[in-house]
Amino acid sequence: MQFELSKEYIERLQTAIEENDTAFIVNTMEEQHPADITAVLHELDTPESKFVTDLLPKEITADIISNLDDDTRKRFIKVFDSDEVASLLPFMNSDDAADLLDEQPVKFREEVIALINDVETANNIIELLHYDEDCAGGLMAKELIKANINWSVIQTIEEIRNQAENVDKIFSVYVVDDNDRLLGIVSVKKILLARANTLISDIYESDIISIESYREDWEVVDLIRKYDLEAIPVVNMAGKLLGVITVDDVVDVITEQAVEEQQIMSGITQNVEEDDNVWRSTRARLPWLLIGMIGGLTGAQFMGFFEGDLKLIPAMAFFIPLITATGGNVGIQSSTIMIQSLAASTGLESSYLLRIIKVLLIALLNASIMCTIVFGFVLLTGEEPKLATVVALALFSVVILASLMGTITPIILDKLGINPALASGPFITTANDLIGLGVYFGVAHSLFGL
Amino acid sequence: MQFELSKEYIERLQTAIEENDTAFIVNTMEEQHPADITAVLHELDTPESKFVTDLLPKEITADIISNLDDDTRKRFIKVFDSDEVASLLPFMNSDDAADLLDEQPVKFREEVIALINDVETANNIIELLHYDEDCAGGLMAKELIKANINWSVIQTIEEIRNQAENVDKIFSVYVVDDNDRLLGIVSVKKILLARANTLISDIYESDIISIESYREDWEVVDLIRKYDLEAIPVVNMAGKLLGVITVDDVVDVITEQAVEEQQIMSGITQNVEEDDNVWRSTRARLPWLLIGMIGGLTGAQFMGFFEGDLKLIPAMAFFIPLITATGGNVGIQSSTIMIQSLAASTGLESSYLLRIIKVLLIALLNASIMCTIVFGFVLLTGEEPKLATVVALALFSVVILASLMGTITPIILDKLGINPALASGPFITTANDLIGLGVYFGVAHSLFGL
Repeated sequence: MQFELSKEYIERLQTAIEENDTAFIVNTMEEQHPADITAVLHELDTPESKFVTDLLPKEITADIISNLDDDTRKRFIKVFDSDEVASLLPFMNSDDAADLLDEQPVKFREEVIALINDVETANNIIELLHYDEDCAGGLMAKELIKANINWSVIQTIEEIRNQAENVDKIFSVYVVDDNDRLLGIVSVKKILLARANTLISDIYESDIISIESYREDWEVVDLIRKYDLEAIPVVNMAGKLLGVITVDDVVDVITEQAVEEQQIMSGITQNVEEDDNVWRSTRARLPWLLIGMIGGLTGAQFMGFFEGDLKLIPAMAFFIPLITATGGNVGIQSSTIMIQSLAASTGLESSYLLRIIKVLLIALLNASIMCTIVFGFVLLTGEEPKLATVVALALFSVVILASLMGTITPIILDKLGINPALASGPFITTANDLIGLGVYFGVAHSLFGL
Repeated sequence: MQFELSKEYIERLQTAIEENDTAFIVNTMEEQHPADITAVLHELDTPESKFVTDLLPKEITADIISNLDDDTRKRFIKVFDSDEVASLLPFMNSDDAADLLDEQPVKFREEVIALINDVETANNIIELLHYDEDCAGGLMAKELIKANINWSVIQTIEEIRNQAENVDKIFSVYVVDDNDRLLGIVSVKKILLARANTLISDIYESDIISIESYREDWEVVDLIRKYDLEAIPVVNMAGKLLGVITVDDVVDVITEQAVEEQQIMSGITQNVEEDDNVWRSTRARLPWLLIGMIGGLTGAQFMGFFEGDLKLIPAMAFFIPLITATGGNVGIQSSTIMIQSLAASTGLESSYLLRIIKVLLIALLNASIMCTIVFGFVLLTGEEPKLATVVALALFSVVILASLMGTITPIILDKLGINPALASGPFITTANDLIGLGVYFGVAHSLFGL
């Protein structure tokens, strides 16, 4: 039943576009789900895509454009004039329409809004454009079914019939008072099973989870996840019903957050995708590389103080990568566990002291095992027992220190309101490199009595 | 409207439990959403939790237990006897009930199943227990509303009324033939707006996205995300309707996948949580630490060949951390971008050659900037120009090589059917450490003509 995207089909389609074979395009597209056509367009270039969408009904084109990823859409919309865009917007959900316009230059945006025929569509978009895209208001759509608490079931069904065109998926009807203040919710199932003259006030549920429009997107995600909701109504400070956020938007938010988190942990400073241009990709990567570089150069300066030691025992240099890499690995492991625990925690914070004691125990175990192996290995390779002792001791200390750093840094960042994910990745690696070097040369210096 | 979990409330509750003040517990719990009670239980110990749930109605307790995270639930269920568990299961969704039993020892599981009074509940659970938890069958619930294609709307509404007790959320009715084969879908909205004698065959939609029970969980996620579904029906190979997966299960899968991916990228080999015990946490971390350690020791052996060089120019050792850290950072950045691109790609693969050329361009830019700075710095600190040249050249090569490694390794792993996330984290860092050392000493050896 699902459409399989194939190289052959894309090639056949491109030939059809070249040869102006509109019949082939229209026929093959007709059977496809708009989401599948979107996937096809991701494989075509902009003029080809425009050729295809011009042949499709406006509601399909609107759907396809809503599905495109942000960057592709931004590029694609450039070949549309404001008239064309204005005629597509009434076929989109208000949240998608607002997102699309939000990506455009102000002048173009204003032109399009002025050209929208449908007053309600225009008003909805203008309202939604006010909200920051990372808050509940920026995620919500205006399309919803609401019923006055004093209505009967039959009146409510009439209202659903009237609005059926605008709202493609209805799970619930929101119950409001005369001032549009949200009072509760009634499921479509309940309406279906109720008698025609039953009052909404008799069947609605007043226990309803809602969210204020200014709340941040992760708060929306948390609520939807916690209460297993399929949609959450958005209200203003006075409790007036403004719109609704559906779970499919939340799925997108969760996915984006996971991608962003990974990038932060990998030392990429702004959201990049593999198909971004070279300059943008470079700029996203350079800052953390430079910080790592400064760390490396600081380490070099630091080791300069020990040039004499290194001259006497060049073998000391051999174990520098072992010490720094272990510090980095331990630090990243510890910080990841802590970051995830901070992100997942919905309850109260259990005692930090207990956590840190546990981290220390884990570190002690790991450190003991590793330093025993390393001590044996260094002896076996014919180095002096003193050097083996220095390496093993330094490794031991580095594992303990890196564990502590990796655990405490995310907590501190979190307390300061900074994304704790910053604590994993280049930052922790660089810091641990320096700590590792300090410990290693410190231990060596005192043990060798240099 | 939402309940705020407070330390004060937890303390008050614990006092109430101690003092056997059941009235307080029942009264404060009555107003709370089961998901909020679940959060409360996460703060209590097992006997306290049991005391609380014993006071609550069975359907609330069933809900709470379904909401608990896996580890807490496993621990919590230990204080229930098989009779108690059997009496709770009919109040759970079949997928939650099966998940709960799947976590229990076989003997206990069999005991519970034998004690379930409701035949349908028992059969559903037995069926669901057959499926692996990571496949579509393992995610689905048996609760759904289906209508025969030959029924009228009024018959369908009767069916919904009969099943209303079992299915709390109905978005759609699945349309089947006499052999229970899935033919299509009809939304509750359409049923609500249709006349009583309309036939389902006249209003149902035959274009329906479904998934076979043996498919993997990420395939479920991809379909739900791509087509913005609120639920997806699960069928067997013959197209028979078996169950349904709702989007809230998918939200959980996405969240778990993101956590797992992060852990793999951080070198944690099995799913751990911050509250796992010390031994389990150690075992999860040790393997990658040991691999990193072996890498470090190999590096030490390798540098042994250059002991003479190090004796002559001890300053060479100063820049080892710079070279290895930069290699690691660049490698992690590149592999993360590639891993994300592999995960997100729903379309065809664009040419690998083009990608690699782009990666090279980005690497060239980053490398040029960094190596200019480093060259200047090393000169300024009074080292020989020759050493500055060696460090800068080595850094340049390492950035290029680490970028290539970071880009190509995930592609190869992906082709081999291994999770490409393995390519980011300790693996890539260790490999890049060794490459970095090789390049550094190689360049030095040839340039100094040692």
